[in-house]
Amino acid sequence: MTESIRVFVTGGTFDKRYDEIRGRLDFAETHLPEMLRLGRSRLDLSVTTLMMIDSLDMTDAHRQRVVESCRTCAERRIVVTHGTDTMSETARALHAAALGKTVVLTGAMIPYAFGSSDGLFNLGSALSLAQVLPPGVYVAMNGRVFAGARVRKNRETGVFFEEAS
Amino acid sequence: MTESIRVFVTGGTFDKRYDEIRGRLDFAETHLPEMLRLGRSRLDLSVTTLMMIDSLDMTDAHRQRVVESCRTCAERRIVVTHGTDTMSETARALHAAALGKTVVLTGAMIPYAFGSSDGLFNLGSALSLAQVLPPGVYVAMNGRVFAGARVRKNRETGVFFEEAS
Amino acid sequence: MTESIRVFVTGGTFDKRYDEIRGRLDFAETHLPEMLRLGRSRLDLSVTTLMMIDSLDMTDAHRQRVVESCRTCAERRIVVTHGTDTMSETARALHAAALGKTVVLTGAMIPYAFGSSDGLFNLGSALSLAQVLPPGVYVAMNGRVFAGARVRKNRETGVFFEEAS
Amino acid sequence: MTESIRVFVTGGTFDKRYDEIRGRLDFAETHLPEMLRLGRSRLDLSVTTLMMIDSLDMTDAHRQRVVESCRTCAERRIVVTHGTDTMSETARALHAAALGKTVVLTGAMIPYAFGSSDGLFNLGSALSLAQVLPPGVYVAMNGRVFAGARVRKNRETGVFFEEAS
Repeated sequence: MTESIRVFVTGGTFDKRYDEIRGRLDFAETHLPEMLRLGRSRLDLSVTTLMMIDSLDMTDAHRQRVVESCRTCAERRIVVTHGTDTMSETARALHAAALGKTVVLTGAMIPYAFGSSDGLFNLGSALSLAQVLPPGVYVAMNGRVFAGARVRKNRETGVFFEEAS
Repeated sequence: MTESIRVFVTGGTFDKRYDEIRGRLDFAETHLPEMLRLGRSRLDLSVTTLMMIDSLDMTDAHRQRVVESCRTCAERRIVVTHGTDTMSETARALHAAALGKTVVLTGAMIPYAFGSSDGLFNLGSALSLAQVLPPGVYVAMNGRVFAGARVRKNRETGVFFEEAS
Repeated sequence: MTESIRVFVTGGTFDKRYDEIRGRLDFAETHLPEMLRLGRSRLDLSVTTLMMIDSLDMTDAHRQRVVESCRTCAERRIVVTHGTDTMSETARALHAAALGKTVVLTGAMIPYAFGSSDGLFNLGSALSLAQVLPPGVYVAMNGRVFAGARVRKNRETGVFFEEAS
Repeated sequence: MTESIRVFVTGGTFDKRYDEIRGRLDFAETHLPEMLRLGRSRLDLSVTTLMMIDSLDMTDAHRQRVVESCRTCAERRIVVTHGTDTMSETARALHAAALGKTVVLTGAMIPYAFGSSDGLFNLGSALSLAQVLPPGVYVAMNGRVFAGARVRKNRETGVFFEEAS
């Protein structure tokens, strides 16, 4: 159960921070290492930042880069942190690529840097699921597990759900 | 994947709070509902507080009550929040009871009421594992999954591990 | 020393919150009551929200409303929460109005809703200064006290200072 | 207004932390530097840890050491962080010593390491009061300012008040 896990960081609300000089949200370094320390993680895990963008700005080229990174990395168990707005699109792209690996996407509704974030909860979910689920693409949000091929986000409520197959 | 989950609360560091009048740690209400709200949980889940004690004070009678509660509840997927010091003992008792249900124990090294707790991370882990693992007893700590029959805590380092079987 | 204090809320970084549906910063209710509870304030104090805006959007009309509110309220000791970008301008307007009251402006570099805000520190400063300083206009930021007539913010560093008179 | 300030740390709830290996509260390093960073303090200030104890354990000898440290330091403006239970006794000892300096005692009802502490609010108060009050001994708690010679803590409610003189 201690197989090595790769975490690919792509940005999203998860990693937004408040730029106090300019008074707006932006991205700097990922908060993943701090979150893993807080969670007292003892996983054999390596973190790679692929990009640091709002998922509304994610193009097909960005998405292809996520797919290829998952394909070519040595690990067979992968977590991708991702903005929630287009997480479903990336999940579908990963599903279509049929990588034969366990890939779990997760993110946050509130930036981790805010005291009241769901990020730590979601990260705990995603890392656990990545260890035990069979090959396939999944989304871990709202405490639940969704099939990557059918997951969608309700933009009005911010809640994820699975389309009837 | 949206089968109903039962959460049994037993206390432990997870739920310790600071009594500001007496200047010491004690227990009041469980923080579970607040944590589920923070995690934006959309699980079908019910929380029952069985006891609210330090796990060093847990007797065989307490432990038996946890086992019987897991046996008699309607749900087949269960999370037990528990102090870390004797979590392994309760895991063994649950394992010995051979309930044919999926039971995941979890806890925290730092009280949730502290800003720097690992509790939310562990709760995300435990609730996810409870949904996808086959019947058996497990401990979710340090981002990892341990077999209930062989898990142990290193009291010097606070880290969980699995004994060779 | 327990004379009644009036707090006028105008918005600013202090009260920004993260809108999780739209993924951006906005304003909702003021966090003042929650902050006073956290600080275990036992002051005789009333809070009035005048406006809830970014101080870069503050017009002369807004500023005049702050001045008139300070002039006409019953209290002689007043705290104004304000965005930092134009706090100095409002301080000058209040100074020019020569109200004969003790008015202390304060704000935050990081929203209070973020775990790492300076807001609670600054609020403690401002409320204390409002109780003990003679009539005049002051800014409480960076743990320091600035004369309202000469205070300025360095936009590059986010630090307040006082111009030589 | 930027005269140098000395901060003497004596421990108290302010600086309690949670020892996760032993599962209890204890003291390690003071949180003062972290708090000053959070508050974006730009004060000319030096911090000295005199002792790191629960104020219920404070003896006359400890108290004498606080008095002598205040007497002999170069600064005329001093903040003392202190457990709340015997803060009044130390305030009286400092008052009796007639140092001719401005000394402000403060503390917290909840440890700073907890997310919900009043410590940052109180520290903002104390540092501001130390800059502007005339020589004398004061307690800054609950957002209020108390005369050191007459302050008392209600042990039932945790609230400070001033005895009629």
